[in-house]
Amino acid sequence: MTLLRDQALACRDAAPAIAALDTAAKQRLLHRMADALLADTALVLAANAIDMAAAQQNGTSTAMLDRLRLDAGRLTAVAEAMRHVAGLPDPVGLVTRRETRPNGITVERVRIPLGVIAMIYEARPNVTADAAALCLMAGNAAILRGGSDAMHSNLAIAAALRRALREEGLPEAVVTVIDDPGRDAMVELLQLTDIVDLAIPRGGEGLIRFVAEHARVPVIKHYKGVCHLYVDRDADETLALDLLIDGKTSRPGVCNALETLLVHHDIAASFIPKAVAALHARGVEVRGDDATRILAPEVRVATDDDYAAEFLDLVIAMRVVPDIDDAITHIRRFGSDHTEVIATCDSAAADRFVKALRSAVVMVNASSRFSDGGELGLGAEIGISTTRLHAYGPMGAESLTVERFVVRGEGQTRHPV
Amino acid sequence: MTLLRDQALACRDAAPAIAALDTAAKQRLLHRMADALLADTALVLAANAIDMAAAQQNGTSTAMLDRLRLDAGRLTAVAEAMRHVAGLPDPVGLVTRRETRPNGITVERVRIPLGVIAMIYEARPNVTADAAALCLMAGNAAILRGGSDAMHSNLAIAAALRRALREEGLPEAVVTVIDDPGRDAMVELLQLTDIVDLAIPRGGEGLIRFVAEHARVPVIKHYKGVCHLYVDRDADETLALDLLIDGKTSRPGVCNALETLLVHHDIAASFIPKAVAALHARGVEVRGDDATRILAPEVRVATDDDYAAEFLDLVIAMRVVPDIDDAITHIRRFGSDHTEVIATCDSAAADRFVKALRSAVVMVNASSRFSDGGELGLGAEIGISTTRLHAYGPMGAESLTVERFVVRGEGQTRHPV
Repeated sequence: MTLLRDQALACRDAAPAIAALDTAAKQRLLHRMADALLADTALVLAANAIDMAAAQQNGTSTAMLDRLRLDAGRLTAVAEAMRHVAGLPDPVGLVTRRETRPNGITVERVRIPLGVIAMIYEARPNVTADAAALCLMAGNAAILRGGSDAMHSNLAIAAALRRALREEGLPEAVVTVIDDPGRDAMVELLQLTDIVDLAIPRGGEGLIRFVAEHARVPVIKHYKGVCHLYVDRDADETLALDLLIDGKTSRPGVCNALETLLVHHDIAASFIPKAVAALHARGVEVRGDDATRILAPEVRVATDDDYAAEFLDLVIAMRVVPDIDDAITHIRRFGSDHTEVIATCDSAAADRFVKALRSAVVMVNASSRFSDGGELGLGAEIGISTTRLHAYGPMGAESLTVERFVVRGEGQTRHPV
Repeated sequence: MTLLRDQALACRDAAPAIAALDTAAKQRLLHRMADALLADTALVLAANAIDMAAAQQNGTSTAMLDRLRLDAGRLTAVAEAMRHVAGLPDPVGLVTRRETRPNGITVERVRIPLGVIAMIYEARPNVTADAAALCLMAGNAAILRGGSDAMHSNLAIAAALRRALREEGLPEAVVTVIDDPGRDAMVELLQLTDIVDLAIPRGGEGLIRFVAEHARVPVIKHYKGVCHLYVDRDADETLALDLLIDGKTSRPGVCNALETLLVHHDIAASFIPKAVAALHARGVEVRGDDATRILAPEVRVATDDDYAAEFLDLVIAMRVVPDIDDAITHIRRFGSDHTEVIATCDSAAADRFVKALRSAVVMVNASSRFSDGGELGLGAEIGISTTRLHAYGPMGAESLTVERFVVRGEGQTRHPV
């Protein structure tokens, strides 16, 4: 086992080589990586079988085992995802603004890579390839610290990616897997302020809180998605019902699923019985306030804990609000700054909702399930930020770069010389 | 003394009131604040006199006393700076991108305020007004923690600003001065992760390292500016000399002053004697490597410490490099990611320099002294970031906002309902 700091230093020192590549070279690299991964299918699946056997012996849950498991089909999808990333617009070198100042100097803002990204994740070994591809496409080196359960799988995937790097004449250290599975090693990584430019944790709330508490390097994170649908007085009820069912039931275990429904008092008598019937028909447990339960007596009582909960399951909290301001107050109190939706035909109400809430994504008459990098047009997603700094909401390749200043003159000085 | 956490909570709870203001209301507020500050001239100067007397008794240095001192002229300049900020473009609500996705939803990126900004600074009481103005113009609430030396001045300035807030019907807590001067209070403030969205330290390296080490909230900082001028083989020597003299001597105590001169070997015999003579004529001490000292024997020996130093004084380190790659290597090793300059007539060399270096500001044939929010067109400056996250280089009002997603649809769902 190489010392973690030495591994990380090698990654940092290799980073300029990836930052210097032009778009075509990065595209060639990612396609070669996808080829290498497929060529290593047997090796990767054998490594994954070792991880799976150990996880089964440890009594790992079925859900976790499913995340850990690779097969030929999943590996092909991972390779295809790398090729997809290769086709995304290259954010590096993009001139976002250009201005000539009164003294004649031209000032450009140009995107450059962040440098070294540390990804901290849990069971899914596909993140090793997904995250490496997006980091590299944005000109960054990647330090990957996956879960100990997936260590053999992650190392096998990284071996394929690193072979592709060597074949392209690039330093393999730009993709570095931390092979020490301990929490101490993770803490050490999170404190390398002279090496790591950004840490992105992906996983359960426990992992993310651990990272946030122990990091000295910058962290972009999201704890949870307590997403709200507010059905306004002037909502189209059929449309609102569609957003409710899609938001709650199309994939309840993800962070952009709906967790709470707020209904304007004036539409409640008409909407709530339909909503509860539709939810119950799809096996969703409904927990509501007194007003909800008068209209739908079969609904269970909701507590404040329910309004704060990210159920990630077929459960929804429901509440009748006297007006839009009360909906906004509720969301400010219980929300997680992830995604909020209003269903309304009143454009003034929509504008008010959008302006008053500062969540990362606010939707008008569209499903919360669109709160996703691919759906919002980012091409791919490295994570979601609910921290209002650098990036807010789904993060694509561009979020792995930063704007800097490039100035060109003809000898201008600030003071006469 | 109110409990710090209660003060900070009041600031956070007041933040939506400032976030909701339109541009005209913010402009009116800032002009009213400038008026209030001028109306309170006598009070502010009396408070400042108390601070000055205490500082003199404590044996504070002349330079520090000068930073602390206010007079009617300086206060007028502070008020004028607030009026200038009122005239800047309002970043809040700016739609930076708009796209219609294949399913018909429109996706906008819209700038919103960060929320609560904590400014941590030292002796200059004018920062209280400058920082408050820029934070408010970007829709943010501000928690201001100045140096204990300037406490009376800061509180007197804040009292004027808060009266203006009340007169505009706004909660005065959006401008909150921490009146506990202790380091413990600063540490407590820096750990309020549920309240403070961003901390910006401004001051000496000691303060900034202290903030970076103790903060659990996000911090944007810069430690120092070790700015380089590289004079390429194909430089115009007169132009290069102008950049050298302006960069080193026009204001040596600031972070965008030059600290190191690198000279291409092929131009050294001609350029170095002229450079040394011009620097010596302006009282600049020169420290050079052997090659420099062969051409200018009166130059003192430079050590690695000199190449790493931010002199902030009439001292410069000098070195002859065999080629542009060696200049880039030197800057990567000793630089602080702040500002680097190349003097050259060779556009390929200029492009190579710009691309290979990842400093926040890179200049071609222009003085390092332009590395400043005002000079680069930001209108005003809240600080400089040498952290490649969120903002990199001089930060204006826009850096106190973040892009989020606003989506509008007509009932689209991700899956058929």
